[in-house]
Amino acid sequence: MPRKGTIALITDFATVDGYVGAMKGRIKSLAPRVEVIDITHQIEPFNLRQAAFCLQNSYPYFPDKTVFVVVVDPGVGTSRRGMVIKSSQHYFIGPDNGVFSFVFQREGCRSYAISLDAFHEEIADTFHGRDVFAPLAAKLACGKDILPFLEPLQDPVSFLNSPRQIDDNQLMLEVLHTDHFGNLILNFSKSDWILRGANEDLTVVAGQHRISGIQKTFGEVAAGETLITWDSTGFLQLAVNMGNAAKELNIHSGEKVRLEL
Amino acid sequence: MPRKGTIALITDFATVDGYVGAMKGRIKSLAPRVEVIDITHQIEPFNLRQAAFCLQNSYPYFPDKTVFVVVVDPGVGTSRRGMVIKSSQHYFIGPDNGVFSFVFQREGCRSYAISLDAFHEEIADTFHGRDVFAPLAAKLACGKDILPFLEPLQDPVSFLNSPRQIDDNQLMLEVLHTDHFGNLILNFSKSDWILRGANEDLTVVAGQHRISGIQKTFGEVAAGETLITWDSTGFLQLAVNMGNAAKELNIHSGEKVRLEL
Amino acid sequence: MPRKGTIALITDFATVDGYVGAMKGRIKSLAPRVEVIDITHQIEPFNLRQAAFCLQNSYPYFPDKTVFVVVVDPGVGTSRRGMVIKSSQHYFIGPDNGVFSFVFQREGCRSYAISLDAFHEEIADTFHGRDVFAPLAAKLACGKDILPFLEPLQDPVSFLNSPRQIDDNQLMLEVLHTDHFGNLILNFSKSDWILRGANEDLTVVAGQHRISGIQKTFGEVAAGETLITWDSTGFLQLAVNMGNAAKELNIHSGEKVRLEL
Repeated sequence: MPRKGTIALITDFATVDGYVGAMKGRIKSLAPRVEVIDITHQIEPFNLRQAAFCLQNSYPYFPDKTVFVVVVDPGVGTSRRGMVIKSSQHYFIGPDNGVFSFVFQREGCRSYAISLDAFHEEIADTFHGRDVFAPLAAKLACGKDILPFLEPLQDPVSFLNSPRQIDDNQLMLEVLHTDHFGNLILNFSKSDWILRGANEDLTVVAGQHRISGIQKTFGEVAAGETLITWDSTGFLQLAVNMGNAAKELNIHSGEKVRLEL
Repeated sequence: MPRKGTIALITDFATVDGYVGAMKGRIKSLAPRVEVIDITHQIEPFNLRQAAFCLQNSYPYFPDKTVFVVVVDPGVGTSRRGMVIKSSQHYFIGPDNGVFSFVFQREGCRSYAISLDAFHEEIADTFHGRDVFAPLAAKLACGKDILPFLEPLQDPVSFLNSPRQIDDNQLMLEVLHTDHFGNLILNFSKSDWILRGANEDLTVVAGQHRISGIQKTFGEVAAGETLITWDSTGFLQLAVNMGNAAKELNIHSGEKVRLEL
Repeated sequence: MPRKGTIALITDFATVDGYVGAMKGRIKSLAPRVEVIDITHQIEPFNLRQAAFCLQNSYPYFPDKTVFVVVVDPGVGTSRRGMVIKSSQHYFIGPDNGVFSFVFQREGCRSYAISLDAFHEEIADTFHGRDVFAPLAAKLACGKDILPFLEPLQDPVSFLNSPRQIDDNQLMLEVLHTDHFGNLILNFSKSDWILRGANEDLTVVAGQHRISGIQKTFGEVAAGETLITWDSTGFLQLAVNMGNAAKELNIHSGEKVRLEL
């Protein structure tokens, strides 16, 4: 019996309370040959943007048919819907609250709402990760039919905003995400840049700071200096070599910076 | 050669020092086909209650014959005993210091003390996780006989207290555990509640705060409001919707609250 | 198809941004049957010493042919070399910046530099973990030939210092590492001690503090008291029973203490 199927987990549960353990136990009980891979359990409590960004940074590299379970779910047990997404290569399971925003933007997707009525076992209203998402993921990873648990879903929630045009040469960008190193990732991708035929002489104006030119990597400027570079998935980012750009520039997720092309 | 056996780990080692890595390496060397699953390595140093709670939140969901290794072990190398527990479904290995309190309460168990004299390899007095518990877990998960390493053990350590009756309608409860979200989990379970024939009109008095009624889930009250709900394993808990009850109510593990039925 | 090969990961990425997820996805896509084991992703950003120590604490216990990938890499994308090391039992992949210092000290090694010119796919200058080290590790763990990607490498970087002799009975030691419990690990090993024919009456002078005698384990002194013991890989360490020696003694990694034999 070879290994069959992969489930990758993203949660804001931390690991210390055993909630992630419960999900893993549930999956292994239902699908002993499926491999469970931790992406992270360190999403800040309720931080949907951080979860969405973590997912977009990792999912494209996983094998076909990997099932991603994302549980950052402040609305658990209320009327917020649980959902399953099928893209051309992967499956995604979690709440319909924006955590899959990047997936909708990048992939042709079919989206389904999870019907709790189809479950025969008791569901804890505070823990769909263990009682709804994990069992569905286990079935899916084993190749079982989960359509009886699903209904069509229109208009899934997304929070992605496009850059706002100020004039011909200026855009108002948004900080999508601040990573663990303090790098500030902006909602302007390499493809946006190519489409506009822009060059490397661009400037980002962030509060009192003006940073110009696109560097190849962090070490191209002196330690402590601010730079612009492409992040490893192709978003423009502000960074400080050997330092923390979010702290140095005092800018955070959701805030605006100006891009001069 | 299919996979054979599962070992799940709970420690207070964090991962940064490589101690967990050493345990995993030891297990994989002795039992290459056994799967090692991380429950957590983020237990606060020496916090036995937190480890016990993490274990009880996760172990019931794991497949039969899973071996749980719990290493929160401030007394390592002293006269405190190492132990192995066999319940009807699972095995547990770790120090006899209370980390298995919930297991004794819930399961019919046979308990054994580990005899260090039966080990032929050198044992570091500061690291039984690597030199005692991991090798025994590897043998057990492979289906090998570990009885030569064991002796009968009476009266294993437990720290669980029952609620204290104040009068016919009032109980003094204890905060068993504060979870990562700040939810306060109390030593009063759904079965205690059913046995008493109580109803949903109960009140918890916590310092200056009175919270009444049992909610189905967090989102049933407005953001920032305190509520009572059942946690996902059936303990009564105090929570704040989208907030942190431990901080808002200024109550912590081990402290008392009053329950009015 | 049985499992084949093991890759163990050490990074300073944390997990929250999905960078580790990307590496795992890449490995699983290239080598589905290889097992990926987390040692840690919690190395402090850019802390090469901590990564080196974590590696030396864990690698000796892993099965033959395990591939260790260490990505603490502030110089990524600059002229710093990526490297592959083959010891008698294991493989190591990562930047040539000192993270393998203990490996060179302990093992007979062959070292190779990674030639980026041999890669056909695009390499992000900020993320060799995903685009260089993970793919090479996947190939190596599968038993594929990676010599086409390698060149001979002389003089790999190491930061290990020997203890400095003050006089016949005194050595100036260095704190190699402060672990998660605050234990201070010193650059003086049990073999150094045996070679010198020293006895257990040694004293460590750390600032205002004098600590004498080697204890078997933490619990041999009262709670809160400082002690000297051998750490679990054979280095001399300063510890506080049930406490944090780094905080109590106010000493940190890289600082000096005096050893009187």
